[in-house]
Amino acid sequence: MEKLQVLSLYANFRKDLNYIEKELECSVDSASPIIRQASLHLLRAGGKRIRPIFVLLASEFGQFSLERVAKVAVSLELVHMASLVHDDVIDNSDMRRGHPTVKAKWNNRIAMYTGDYIFAQALVSIADIKNAAVHQLLAKTMLEICEGEIIQIEHQRVVNQTVRDYLRRIKRKTALLLSSSCELGALVSGAEPAVVNKLSRFGYYAGMSFQITDDILDLTSTDEELGKPAGSDLLNGHLTLPIFYLKDDPAFQPYMEQAFSGNLTEQAREDMLAYVRSSGAIEKAAAVSDLYLQKAKHEIRALPEGKAKKSFIQIAEFIGKRNY
Amino acid sequence: MEKLQVLSLYANFRKDLNYIEKELECSVDSASPIIRQASLHLLRAGGKRIRPIFVLLASEFGQFSLERVAKVAVSLELVHMASLVHDDVIDNSDMRRGHPTVKAKWNNRIAMYTGDYIFAQALVSIADIKNAAVHQLLAKTMLEICEGEIIQIEHQRVVNQTVRDYLRRIKRKTALLLSSSCELGALVSGAEPAVVNKLSRFGYYAGMSFQITDDILDLTSTDEELGKPAGSDLLNGHLTLPIFYLKDDPAFQPYMEQAFSGNLTEQAREDMLAYVRSSGAIEKAAAVSDLYLQKAKHEIRALPEGKAKKSFIQIAEFIGKRNY
Repeated sequence: MEKLQVLSLYANFRKDLNYIEKELECSVDSASPIIRQASLHLLRAGGKRIRPIFVLLASEFGQFSLERVAKVAVSLELVHMASLVHDDVIDNSDMRRGHPTVKAKWNNRIAMYTGDYIFAQALVSIADIKNAAVHQLLAKTMLEICEGEIIQIEHQRVVNQTVRDYLRRIKRKTALLLSSSCELGALVSGAEPAVVNKLSRFGYYAGMSFQITDDILDLTSTDEELGKPAGSDLLNGHLTLPIFYLKDDPAFQPYMEQAFSGNLTEQAREDMLAYVRSSGAIEKAAAVSDLYLQKAKHEIRALPEGKAKKSFIQIAEFIGKRNY
Repeated sequence: MEKLQVLSLYANFRKDLNYIEKELECSVDSASPIIRQASLHLLRAGGKRIRPIFVLLASEFGQFSLERVAKVAVSLELVHMASLVHDDVIDNSDMRRGHPTVKAKWNNRIAMYTGDYIFAQALVSIADIKNAAVHQLLAKTMLEICEGEIIQIEHQRVVNQTVRDYLRRIKRKTALLLSSSCELGALVSGAEPAVVNKLSRFGYYAGMSFQITDDILDLTSTDEELGKPAGSDLLNGHLTLPIFYLKDDPAFQPYMEQAFSGNLTEQAREDMLAYVRSSGAIEKAAAVSDLYLQKAKHEIRALPEGKAKKSFIQIAEFIGKRNY
C-alpha cells in the first residue's frame, strides 16, 4: 500500500482493508508449498490495493456488508494479481515494484500455473454469491482483459498505430477492472441501478487517467522510484501515450528503433529519456489524463454525499497529482 | 470425436452433443482474430468430448434440461482445453492429436493468453446458473487441477517418487475433472444427493482407469496412432505407472537417464520402447487400471436402470478395452 497510505482515505477504511488483506492471504494458502510461497511473495510485494478500495467505496452507496464486499474485493485483486504474473512471463520481466517476479524467483512454468491457480481462487472467492450479474460481470471482465493482452501482443513493436489503439488497449488493461470494481462493489450491496452506472463510469474514467499517468511515470521517474528501468515500456515494445507525440519526430525515431530491436545502450536510454522529458510530449499526455479525470469527477458529483463520495474525490485528486 | 464415434452411445446422444459442439464454437467467437483462430484450431483438432458426454449422461439421472446441461458441459470442456494449451507451453509440445499446438502454430505468449481467455469463457458459460454448489465445485476443481500441474513440475525428472505420488498426480490431472463432470451434470439436473455421490465416484474411478490406460498407450502405440512420438511422457520427464515397475531395473535405468537428460537417440528410444513392452510392466499397470474400472462399474450398478446407466457401462467397457 506504500505511499498511498499517506492519504487519509486509507485511515477511514483501515479496518476493512485489513480484513480484506487477511482474506487475500487465506485465499492463497495452497497445499502446494511452491504455490503458497509464490502467491505470498506476490501478495507481500504490495501494490496499492486500488481495486479493493474501489469495491469498498462503491459498496458504501448500497447496503454495506463487509463479508460480501470482501469476497468481491478479494476476487478482483486476485484477477489483477494473476494477470500480473502472466504478464511478467510474457514481458520476461525479472523485477516488479522493486521485488523479483515469480518467473525470476522460480521460473516461467511456476509463474504460469501460479497465475492459473490465483485465477481459480478468484472464482472460489465469489462462488457462493448468489447474484448472476456478479458472475457475468467478472467473467466478462476477465475475457476482455485477456483479449486486451493479445491485442497488446499484436501491437508490440508496431509503429504504425493510432492513439485510439492505445486508448482501447489501456481500457482493457486497467480501466475495465477498475470500472468493474466499482460496479461489483455497488452491485453486491444492492445500490440503485443509476448509481451503479455512475460508479462504473467513474471507475472507467479514473482507470484511464490512472494508466496514462502510470505510462508517463515510466518515462519521468528514476529507476529507483520505479523498481525497474525507466523506459521499460519502450524497451518491451509498448507504445504509450507520450510516444505517440514523438514517433514521427526524426530525432526520436532512432531511439525507438534501437529500443524495439533491443540495441539501446545505457547511454542512449538516458539520452532518450532526457529527450522525451524536454519534448513537450509528457505535458500533452498529462492533459489527456486530466481530461479523463474531469470526466471521472463529473460522474462522482451527482452521487449522494458521504464519506465514500469524499474519498472517491480524494482518489481522483491523488491520481491527478501523483508523481510515484 | 474420432474413433469413439463407433460406440452406439454417441448415436444415442448425437443431437445433444451437436448442440454442445455448436455452443462450444460460439463461446470462442472472440473480437480478437488471433484468439478466435487459435481457439477454433484447438476445438477442431477434436478430442473425445468425454467431459461433455459424462455431463450429459449424469444429467439423465435428474430432470434433464439441455440448455442448463450444455452450459456446464461447455464450461468443463473449456477448462480442459485451456489446461491443454497451457500444458503445451510447459511441455514445449509442438504436436497434439496429430495437429500442431497453439504454441507451435502461433507462440508461447498467444498460447498463454488463449488459455486464459478460454478459462474466462468457461466462467461466462456458467455465470447465469443460480446454484452456488455448481460454482463452488467448478472453482475447486480448477484449483486442484492447477495444484496438480505444479506438483507434476515438482515431480518432473525425479526418480525417487512412489506409485502413490503418481496416483495423486493423475487424480488431479484427469480423474477430478471427470468426477466433477458427473457431479455437475447430476447437480444441475437436481438428481438425488446419493445418486450425485455415486456418479461423482464413478467419474473418479473411470478417470483413474482412463489416465492409466492413456499412459500405457503412450508406451505401446505407434507414433502415428498417438500423433506424437511414443514415449513422450518419459521424454518430458514424467514417470507413468509402467515405469514404476522398471525404474529400479539396471537394464532400464540408462534409458531413463538418457530420456530425462534429453540424450535419448532415436534408436535408443525404439530399444527402450521394445524393452518396456516385453518387460511385463505394461500388464501390471493394466491390472491397476482394471481394478479402478471394477470400482467404477460397482458404483454404476446401484443406479436406476435406463439409457444413461447402459451408456456409462458401455463407456467403462470401452475404457477397459481401448487400444487407441
